Amino acid sequence: MTTQEIAINMVLNAWRSGVNELDKLLTELSDDQLLKEISPGRNRGIYILGHLVVLLNNSRPLMGYGEDPTPHLVEPFVKMPDREAKELPPVAEIRHAWHNARTAMENNIALTPVDEWFKKHTAISAEDFQLEPHRNKLNVILLRIPHLSHHIGQLTLLKSKG
Amino acid sequence: MTTQEIAINMVLNAWRSGVNELDKLLTELSDDQLLKEISPGRNRGIYILGHLVVLLNNSRPLMGYGEDPTPHLVEPFVKMPDREAKELPPVAEIRHAWHNARTAMENNIALTPVDEWFKKHTAISAEDFQLEPHRNKLNVILLRIPHLSHHIGQLTLLKSKG
Repeated sequence: MTTQEIAINMVLNAWRSGVNELDKLLTELSDDQLLKEISPGRNRGIYILGHLVVLLNNSRPLMGYGEDPTPHLVEPFVKMPDREAKELPPVAEIRHAWHNARTAMENNIALTPVDEWFKKHTAISAEDFQLEPHRNKLNVILLRIPHLSHHIGQLTLLKSKG
Repeated sequence: MTTQEIAINMVLNAWRSGVNELDKLLTELSDDQLLKEISPGRNRGIYILGHLVVLLNNSRPLMGYGEDPTPHLVEPFVKMPDREAKELPPVAEIRHAWHNARTAMENNIALTPVDEWFKKHTAISAEDFQLEPHRNKLNVILLRIPHLSHHIGQLTLLKSKG
């Protein structure tokens, strides 16, 4: 295995660990728990999950994998803070959207050849990429890892909520 | 820049972003806030910060950078759940321990030559490393990133606590 392949595997494995951790957590949390706040006055579980869906789906065009399939979720789950949207979609719909988002990403990852990962993502010009070669497709995945973990740390707090 | 160097920079930059995020958060949180629970009945800020210190310091021997400088923190911040230790060290001491841990790691990182990062860490045999070449020094840093972010997501909740 080349160093390049090892580096790609490291990042993809770390991403998949995070995804599996969230999948497991979601089987442990009821819809009622996802409607609760992670801490008094803070975001609700459903808001955080919808937020994760949006941030994963908007990496799709960034990596050249096609359109964001859920542009209607950007407003209620990213542009607006929790409780500003008149109504959020039902929990079941957001669970389903997460499942679709993570599955689509996994399928896209599996189809990406080794020599694609260190090529530029779509939001940087070829000129700038010469100077900042870390702004590649693998880095898009890498930077999703801390974002995912940040929110998993918060969603974990819902486990104790009756 | 070689692909190997780009991959190393990507991981180190992501690690440093997390460290800087925690450093900034710590300037925003008072000692009183760090003594509060992140959510009713859950861990206190000081416990989480001490836990991060231990997990960072125990990566030091794993990467061949010397001994863990704070073995006395393992018991109260990792082996025991929060509130089981009779008394935790003062907040100022744990803040200081974090500062030392992250600075020591940064210094060690800066001294590590490019061709060291994809060599094995100290807890895997040369034989196993042949089969699992991702268990290298760079991966030790990579796997600390989601752990750090998980707990930053929780510590952030202390900001609203008066």
